[in-house]
Amino acid sequence: MTKWVYSFGNGAAEGRADMRNLLGGKGAGLAEMANLGLPVPPGFTITTEVCTHFYERDKTYPDGLDAEIAAALAAVEKTLGLKFGDPGNPLLVSVRSGARASMPGMMDTVLNLGLNDDTVQGLARKSGDERFAYDSYRRFLQMYGQVVLGIEHHHFEQLIEEHKLDAGVVLDTELTAEDWRTLVSAFKDVIRSETRRPFPQDAHDQLKGAIDAVFGSWMNPRAVTYRRLHQIPSDWGTAVNVQAMVFGNMGDDCATGVAFTRDPATGVNELYGEYLVNAQGEDVVAGIRTPQRLTLASKEASRSPLPAMEEVMPDVFAELCKVRRTLEDHYRDMQDIEFTVERGQLWMLQTRTGKRTAQAALKIAVSLVEEGVIDKNEAIRRIEPASLDQLLHPMLDPSAKTTVLAHGLPASPGAASGKVVFSADEAEWLAGRGEAVILVRVETSPEDIHGMHAARGVLTTRGGMTSHAAVVARGMGRPCVAGAGDLKVDYETRTISVRNNKIEAGDVITINGSTGEVILGEVPTIQPELSGDFATLMGWADALRKLGVRANAETPADARAARNFGAEGIGLSRTEHMFFEADRIDSMREMIMADEETGRRAALAKLLPMQRADFAELFRIMRGLPVTIRLLDPPLHEFLPKTDAEFAEMARVSGKDVGEIRSRTHALHEANPMLGHRGCRLGITYPEIYEMQAVAIFEAAIAVAKETGKPPEPEIMVPLIATRREFDILREMVDRVAKAAMDKAGVKIPYHVGTMIELPRAALLAGEIAESAEFFSFGTNDLTQTVFGLSRDDAASFIGAYQRLGVLKQDPFVTIDTEGVGELIRIASERGRATRPDLKVGICGEHGGDPASIRFCREVRLDYVSCSPYRVPIARLAAAQAELEDAGTGTA
Amino acid sequence: MTKWVYSFGNGAAEGRADMRNLLGGKGAGLAEMANLGLPVPPGFTITTEVCTHFYERDKTYPDGLDAEIAAALAAVEKTLGLKFGDPGNPLLVSVRSGARASMPGMMDTVLNLGLNDDTVQGLARKSGDERFAYDSYRRFLQMYGQVVLGIEHHHFEQLIEEHKLDAGVVLDTELTAEDWRTLVSAFKDVIRSETRRPFPQDAHDQLKGAIDAVFGSWMNPRAVTYRRLHQIPSDWGTAVNVQAMVFGNMGDDCATGVAFTRDPATGVNELYGEYLVNAQGEDVVAGIRTPQRLTLASKEASRSPLPAMEEVMPDVFAELCKVRRTLEDHYRDMQDIEFTVERGQLWMLQTRTGKRTAQAALKIAVSLVEEGVIDKNEAIRRIEPASLDQLLHPMLDPSAKTTVLAHGLPASPGAASGKVVFSADEAEWLAGRGEAVILVRVETSPEDIHGMHAARGVLTTRGGMTSHAAVVARGMGRPCVAGAGDLKVDYETRTISVRNNKIEAGDVITINGSTGEVILGEVPTIQPELSGDFATLMGWADALRKLGVRANAETPADARAARNFGAEGIGLSRTEHMFFEADRIDSMREMIMADEETGRRAALAKLLPMQRADFAELFRIMRGLPVTIRLLDPPLHEFLPKTDAEFAEMARVSGKDVGEIRSRTHALHEANPMLGHRGCRLGITYPEIYEMQAVAIFEAAIAVAKETGKPPEPEIMVPLIATRREFDILREMVDRVAKAAMDKAGVKIPYHVGTMIELPRAALLAGEIAESAEFFSFGTNDLTQTVFGLSRDDAASFIGAYQRLGVLKQDPFVTIDTEGVGELIRIASERGRATRPDLKVGICGEHGGDPASIRFCREVRLDYVSCSPYRVPIARLAAAQAELEDAGTGTA
Repeated sequence: MTKWVYSFGNGAAEGRADMRNLLGGKGAGLAEMANLGLPVPPGFTITTEVCTHFYERDKTYPDGLDAEIAAALAAVEKTLGLKFGDPGNPLLVSVRSGARASMPGMMDTVLNLGLNDDTVQGLARKSGDERFAYDSYRRFLQMYGQVVLGIEHHHFEQLIEEHKLDAGVVLDTELTAEDWRTLVSAFKDVIRSETRRPFPQDAHDQLKGAIDAVFGSWMNPRAVTYRRLHQIPSDWGTAVNVQAMVFGNMGDDCATGVAFTRDPATGVNELYGEYLVNAQGEDVVAGIRTPQRLTLASKEASRSPLPAMEEVMPDVFAELCKVRRTLEDHYRDMQDIEFTVERGQLWMLQTRTGKRTAQAALKIAVSLVEEGVIDKNEAIRRIEPASLDQLLHPMLDPSAKTTVLAHGLPASPGAASGKVVFSADEAEWLAGRGEAVILVRVETSPEDIHGMHAARGVLTTRGGMTSHAAVVARGMGRPCVAGAGDLKVDYETRTISVRNNKIEAGDVITINGSTGEVILGEVPTIQPELSGDFATLMGWADALRKLGVRANAETPADARAARNFGAEGIGLSRTEHMFFEADRIDSMREMIMADEETGRRAALAKLLPMQRADFAELFRIMRGLPVTIRLLDPPLHEFLPKTDAEFAEMARVSGKDVGEIRSRTHALHEANPMLGHRGCRLGITYPEIYEMQAVAIFEAAIAVAKETGKPPEPEIMVPLIATRREFDILREMVDRVAKAAMDKAGVKIPYHVGTMIELPRAALLAGEIAESAEFFSFGTNDLTQTVFGLSRDDAASFIGAYQRLGVLKQDPFVTIDTEGVGELIRIASERGRATRPDLKVGICGEHGGDPASIRFCREVRLDYVSCSPYRVPIARLAAAQAELEDAGTGTA
Repeated sequence: MTKWVYSFGNGAAEGRADMRNLLGGKGAGLAEMANLGLPVPPGFTITTEVCTHFYERDKTYPDGLDAEIAAALAAVEKTLGLKFGDPGNPLLVSVRSGARASMPGMMDTVLNLGLNDDTVQGLARKSGDERFAYDSYRRFLQMYGQVVLGIEHHHFEQLIEEHKLDAGVVLDTELTAEDWRTLVSAFKDVIRSETRRPFPQDAHDQLKGAIDAVFGSWMNPRAVTYRRLHQIPSDWGTAVNVQAMVFGNMGDDCATGVAFTRDPATGVNELYGEYLVNAQGEDVVAGIRTPQRLTLASKEASRSPLPAMEEVMPDVFAELCKVRRTLEDHYRDMQDIEFTVERGQLWMLQTRTGKRTAQAALKIAVSLVEEGVIDKNEAIRRIEPASLDQLLHPMLDPSAKTTVLAHGLPASPGAASGKVVFSADEAEWLAGRGEAVILVRVETSPEDIHGMHAARGVLTTRGGMTSHAAVVARGMGRPCVAGAGDLKVDYETRTISVRNNKIEAGDVITINGSTGEVILGEVPTIQPELSGDFATLMGWADALRKLGVRANAETPADARAARNFGAEGIGLSRTEHMFFEADRIDSMREMIMADEETGRRAALAKLLPMQRADFAELFRIMRGLPVTIRLLDPPLHEFLPKTDAEFAEMARVSGKDVGEIRSRTHALHEANPMLGHRGCRLGITYPEIYEMQAVAIFEAAIAVAKETGKPPEPEIMVPLIATRREFDILREMVDRVAKAAMDKAGVKIPYHVGTMIELPRAALLAGEIAESAEFFSFGTNDLTQTVFGLSRDDAASFIGAYQRLGVLKQDPFVTIDTEGVGELIRIASERGRATRPDLKVGICGEHGGDPASIRFCREVRLDYVSCSPYRVPIARLAAAQAELEDAGTGTA
């Protein structure tokens, strides 16, 4: 029989850390802490299987669940000597969600459950603090009303504001027990009038309602959005944790806090966190009060005026340090913990693997290897390859002169510039139009997630390092400055005031999430140093991986970046990009406008020296490494003007009639350019174009060979091959040009001619094509388009619906579709290698930088992946991880 | 050692009929006739392998060829007691090309070779006719100058015209021996001045030059074009036939003629042909003199004023009839023969299988079976399926009132209407713009082939039934009226005068190639009767074939035509065609313009009754046969207006703002519509559209079931599936709609839900898709586009070059690419059937009507092909032929 409820507390638990799928992250953590003998308030977890059952069976619960809950509750009562719903000696509980994957702020929580008109008096009596009891009761009513009964929170807040006005006070803390009692009564009236039913006084009814609400919230739109963004399947479900309440708000010997066992921003091995004295539960995370530091060192570093826990509660602090060591030793990783101090007693409420910045992840992984806690393979496994992206992008130039508007907390590292926007919707809208934006909010909430995702960076004026904004931004890898209290945000007028400055919506600011600076305008950036922990870890990855990593690059800047990031060559140089530059597009257009081959040749002759110089530069930069050059790929009409102004300009430059230009453009128009006159089809119908490119390649190689004494080894790649004959015609041309150039110069250039495999037919006929092609490079962008019959440009109108409906588990343009596209890759590799065992096979679509796709590439034994320069380190790490997965090596 | 030369003559030959590939058609025919003991002037054939050698080895000849030619020539000399180049007793020869496949008029011929200033006197002496000798010499000089030396023929003709003017005569026949002698001298001067070398007097040099010219002509542009049009590989090469001259122009007991052993237009079992008294070689075919009939019956039937051979030369005629029987008994097929009568002696110069109209082919094949000469399988094999097309198209309505302008010869049957054009280029140009044209020429020549191909029909004012125009038109299946001598064509003014009428270029005329009528304007047509020989042969084909044949049809007219042509059901009904009709497009557009589902549903509700009526009508017409209905396929923007006028009209009808319509159109625009938001992607994102269609199908089926007592069995086909999940979502919808409709009506409709396989991914994942799809239909148009990455609309700009360069052996949109597309079809069929052994698998792309593709379909064991109604008989026959090929059944 299935067990639906798992108890914990009192130094033991029915669950374990490895039951995370069943108990959720929070439940598994609580069980494990209880097993470790840490002080955990007793409670129980209702499993994720109940959630799955709930949604699969028309929102009903499994038989026997009620009995298991009753038994578990009785155990808690017994441990604490309290009774749920007993006016004399009431047990109060919290009810929280806890999914398998952490979903911060997305799920709802109810505290102080079990309070009613009778038990509140028991609580008052037992705590000796009537004000605390009624404050707790009103908090419970507020949370229950909002989360379980769906009443908008302004109903409650308005009553508090009015009452404070009547009472002539400003702060909540000035309200008395009597005030809260009055408000409790008013809150119950609100609940009755909004739900047309009285507030449930029965504790068991309250519990049932709260459990329903947690399971119900699994499908609320915010949760659905979060899961979609983070690719969390909805059938995972959430667990529900019911736990005896402990109170951090019973007086000044009480506190509540959150901490990381190491610094989540830098990875430095120090306890890092915040607490609030005399505060309850979510007050720290909610960012309503600015919290205090735990350690003296941190207090000093941040110049905080508030005392550290180390000073205020040294005993509790020492115990917390012990807990920290226990958890790190046990989990062998940095932990994110929550605790409450009730009258000097430390209670642990949560432990989980802490989210961290990429920089911190590297530092922690490398440190743990140095500390002997984990091995190198485990360190490699621990870094999410995509997160490295955060480290690779330019950082603010420290020598730049800047106008610093304010300092906030360095909540998520990295720098970002963009236009100021004040709402998530505006952020999403503007970003969708290609604008860089900074989302500015007093504080963020789960409703803002989509805007945070769309923004380049997030700035808040309230909240600490563990506020919603900070946690979510770190998880997303977005720079964030939090709690920049000097800034006054006015949503109404859409302005930020700071001393004498006024920033309006649309003005550009820069935030530096590593220092907390908020800067006026855009700040120049520089390339980051890739040394230290990064270099160490990448060294381990490189030693492990067998898959080569190259870069897609054609400009000298990109080629240099690629080398800097560790690329082992260029896997794709898109020569057409070279023709778009201002001084070249005119010659390109002249070539396209020419009626005859002679006219085309004349225009190409002007392009030749430029193209030759491009290639020579690439060969110089990539000295000693292979350079794959793809011959012209896009249809000619891509080079022609689109707008009337461009037509006029082209007419002026070329001396041709606008009508003539228009009619040529019209003649070149294609119904489906993706499937049109492009790639090798151009090379075959206008052989002079590819010939010029081949001449440029060989003349450049010869020049560089003479310069350096070492000839480059160009790999010439023919795009869009569908038949072997196409390849043969063009290979013959390349060989002829190569021979002529080499004979003339008396220099031998080793070279290879190969092809893109980007059409299904080429994949199927790979055996035949490999008879004359020396290498294959899968163009998975086009291959995905043709295999799915899906234009990347046009898919946007329905791909969202397709993901929602589960037709596509992932966007096939991001991660290789292993079943369809992947099968053709497999077929082509096998057939090609059967013909030519030493065939070099790589991939140069954008999938080359996607970790899941890289895993597939290793699985089918490709020789290398090629990706954009900024993804090269990601690919190097992902390739190492693929090796670990492929070898099935266990953890150390 | 390879033998390069094969001798024949004197009742024996080294070659045989089955050595056609080596000796060419003409050479093999000559050898076989010699072996049969027929009177063949002796000679020899230089093999096609010499031609291949010539082009493969830089236009050089194999070693030993000269010696073999010398030996063969000596044998001819010995047989005839003549000597090549001997002034006293000269042997004269003809040199002709002879390729494996007949290429009428495409290759060059030289007659009277061996004449020079000395031998001409020997010929004069031996023939006793000096005029004949010098006429022969000047003909030789003319032909040699033109064909071998490349001198334009007007040089010679001008001299003749001038000489006639000087001599004061009108006709060539009035010129004397002396006149010709003078012209011979002038011709030699032309040759000297044009080639800067004297005319070669040495007979052996002449022979060498002529052989070079024949091989050289294999690659002339006309030959290359002809081969391309007829898909003849250029590596087949041509043979050269060198044969002793016999003269049909030595006097009135001489003649030359061509004949068919049966009527090539009707197939009737009668000798059919023409001859000219006192004429040489090519005079009949060239169409310069109007020839006479062979038989009395034919003379009478055609009301010819000239005497028949049967009257004039009864002995020769009797011998010709004997030859006819010998050849038909031997070849078991209708033959096309050439002969010359020299002083009462019949000489056979050629026999080959005669070209014939489709009607004649059917009649001959069926007659030969009835005569016991061949079996039914051989009869099936003999009919080119594509030729049936000629019989299926509408014929002129005999009850229509017409203005007959003139009568010509019924040279190639069928009727055609179109605009008059006077040149091949104009025909091609206008036809390329979608115009129906009739090519009108005084006579045609090989330069006109492309225009004849482009035209709907051909009309000439000169030449007979075996003229170039007639032979080529019959081969192409184009209607042709030849020798309509009452019409006066003026190329200058681009007019035709006939009595009081003047027809100008661009005026519409109709020609009836079955009667020889030339009619003013367009004439209404009617559907042909498909009975007699056609029905007999198709009955044999149907009994043999295992592959089913269905039709692609959606209109009642097409569905009726399909049934009439023997379709066994509808394999593809494209429902979108139903939405373009005037009364529906407005509702369709209203649906597309609607912002919300409710608006779309309202518009769809208007379409439902029309769609239901469409389906009901199809079910009624196809009673007892399956009907496959494909749900909406094209992207929505195809239904929106394109031009400003259309925008305005739509605004008027819909009451919407033009700007709004434009912006919606703009929003729906796609970069690559072929790969865009269409097919099942529409069905998934706008479920209400497919739902309406499903409702219409089931309501129609129910209505027809109630009407007829027998429920139709609809097959509902989902287009553009890439994933199984897409299919599942839509199948669930169809099942739900079906259940609701059937429950409501209390009628059970047996139905099937299946899918198009038209994307590579669907083919690869076919095993999975077949778990829920009940049938597959290969959409080979789209599959070809995606497998090749080639848009059908855009391929035109380079597909010609691709065929010329041998990249594509055939247009993959016409004949299935068996290597690429075919492999996916094979994979999908195998995987689909592995999952679901009774999976029904068909094909509904246009390849379904292409014989070569049908052969492939049978090879991979598809259940049926579906094609346009007019190709159904072609498919039935091709399917039977595929069966014969598949079974490897020998001929009877």
